[in-house]
Amino acid sequence: MSIKRFGVSLDNALLKRFDTSISRKGYANRSEAIRDLIRDSLVQEEWKDEDGVAAVGTVTIIYSHHSKELQSKLTEMQHRHHASVISTMHIHLDAHNCLEVLVVRGAPREVRSIAESLMSVKGVKHGKFTATTSGKGLK
Amino acid sequence: MSIKRFGVSLDNALLKRFDTSISRKGYANRSEAIRDLIRDSLVQEEWKDEDGVAAVGTVTIIYSHHSKELQSKLTEMQHRHHASVISTMHIHLDAHNCLEVLVVRGAPREVRSIAESLMSVKGVKHGKFTATTSGKGLK
Amino acid sequence: MSIKRFGVSLDNALLKRFDTSISRKGYANRSEAIRDLIRDSLVQEEWKDEDGVAAVGTVTIIYSHHSKELQSKLTEMQHRHHASVISTMHIHLDAHNCLEVLVVRGAPREVRSIAESLMSVKGVKHGKFTATTSGKGLK
Amino acid sequence: MSIKRFGVSLDNALLKRFDTSISRKGYANRSEAIRDLIRDSLVQEEWKDEDGVAAVGTVTIIYSHHSKELQSKLTEMQHRHHASVISTMHIHLDAHNCLEVLVVRGAPREVRSIAESLMSVKGVKHGKFTATTSGKGLK
Repeated sequence: MSIKRFGVSLDNALLKRFDTSISRKGYANRSEAIRDLIRDSLVQEEWKDEDGVAAVGTVTIIYSHHSKELQSKLTEMQHRHHASVISTMHIHLDAHNCLEVLVVRGAPREVRSIAESLMSVKGVKHGKFTATTSGKGLK
Repeated sequence: MSIKRFGVSLDNALLKRFDTSISRKGYANRSEAIRDLIRDSLVQEEWKDEDGVAAVGTVTIIYSHHSKELQSKLTEMQHRHHASVISTMHIHLDAHNCLEVLVVRGAPREVRSIAESLMSVKGVKHGKFTATTSGKGLK
Repeated sequence: MSIKRFGVSLDNALLKRFDTSISRKGYANRSEAIRDLIRDSLVQEEWKDEDGVAAVGTVTIIYSHHSKELQSKLTEMQHRHHASVISTMHIHLDAHNCLEVLVVRGAPREVRSIAESLMSVKGVKHGKFTATTSGKGLK
Repeated sequence: MSIKRFGVSLDNALLKRFDTSISRKGYANRSEAIRDLIRDSLVQEEWKDEDGVAAVGTVTIIYSHHSKELQSKLTEMQHRHHASVISTMHIHLDAHNCLEVLVVRGAPREVRSIAESLMSVKGVKHGKFTATTSGKGLK
């Protein structure tokens, strides 16, 4: 891994605001905060290529476990996509509500489609899809 | 749980487009799709009250496990917030990259702050915060 | 224009929360709020087809008018895309800052590309692209 | 305006991907692209303070001009908020559809509320609110 160093010039007042903002967020230094901005912009690009490879996303769904049919339906759907659904975590939020997070991997188009099919199941109260990355090529 | 039924009037051509869109997403019927739109708009409201209670969110971070310091730092941070970090799932994406999803619960302001502090750690390649809900009051 | 009416069933407590939320936003009735949710979901679909036709978006840029070069560059760029840039409004925010909103029409890919090229010009302090619709087929 | 220069270190492969991405977007150089990332993160912070001052946003609405009542209602609403609605541009998209962009200025809470009240009017087919900045303090 070869590291390159380059200079950024910025108005001093702006730099002070940026420093305040990133220290509030917990960044140890400016370079790390800027690397995060750069990496996030690259991850957004990855997701623009609908048929690209190896995109990684998470699907979060909230539902009540009182319906046995719902649970078995969700499980069955995850198995149908077992090549893409890497792992699932299940949380008991309270006596009724469950949260499930799935990590899904594949082409953007495929990952999104799996997410949509899970979030649209009757009984799922809330569904959210989050686009992230396999981390490959990001350093 | 008492169910109420109300009517929605919609231009016919628009209704056809909506039906096509939701059947592609996998919805069994129109009512379920509309309930999802309604519930999502309510979850967005929940997150507007910065000091509200019992918001639930997930934090997804991607990092390389080669740095032992990083792992112990992330673990230490999660323990510091143990009252809010409900659970964590760890995935080995490849020989180098890990994905970790945390489920966090608390006031919106607090949940966001925990997310920011984790995503800003040096070595975390990508971080994403997802706002969802405890499911309470959503049926 | 033929209107269709269909029923939606919803838990009563949820309906009450929805009614509170939409009355705060200013909706006259439930039907209109639901039509807006439906139309917004359809506009999001329009933008998924990168090579689709007749998407409409706005580009908002903030810059200081003190640089004459910048103004002429922005104007020149807009003329180069005159077939797509429908109209521009210019606001003097204060003695230094200008806001310009452009309405752009074309295939999603093209509209986004024009937006990116304008927002990336040196001297543009902030740029935002907003995806909307030509309204065709939306009633 | 005093300019400060600081160094950013980045993995070389990552820097190459960033360079490709920003040249596709039209950036003349790396420094300008990074300044844009920094400024955008600061504008996002501005909007977190609900009662902050001098936030600037745009509201885009699409509607059919065939309803005279609608037009007069929208005009009347804009006048009621004349202190905050700086300017409006009106575009005839086709024989039926109009696009209107308003530039609104005020505390985030107020600007959002004006946007919501306009977007919720019956007959408005699509509404979008865009958060930007007065440019003050951004260089």
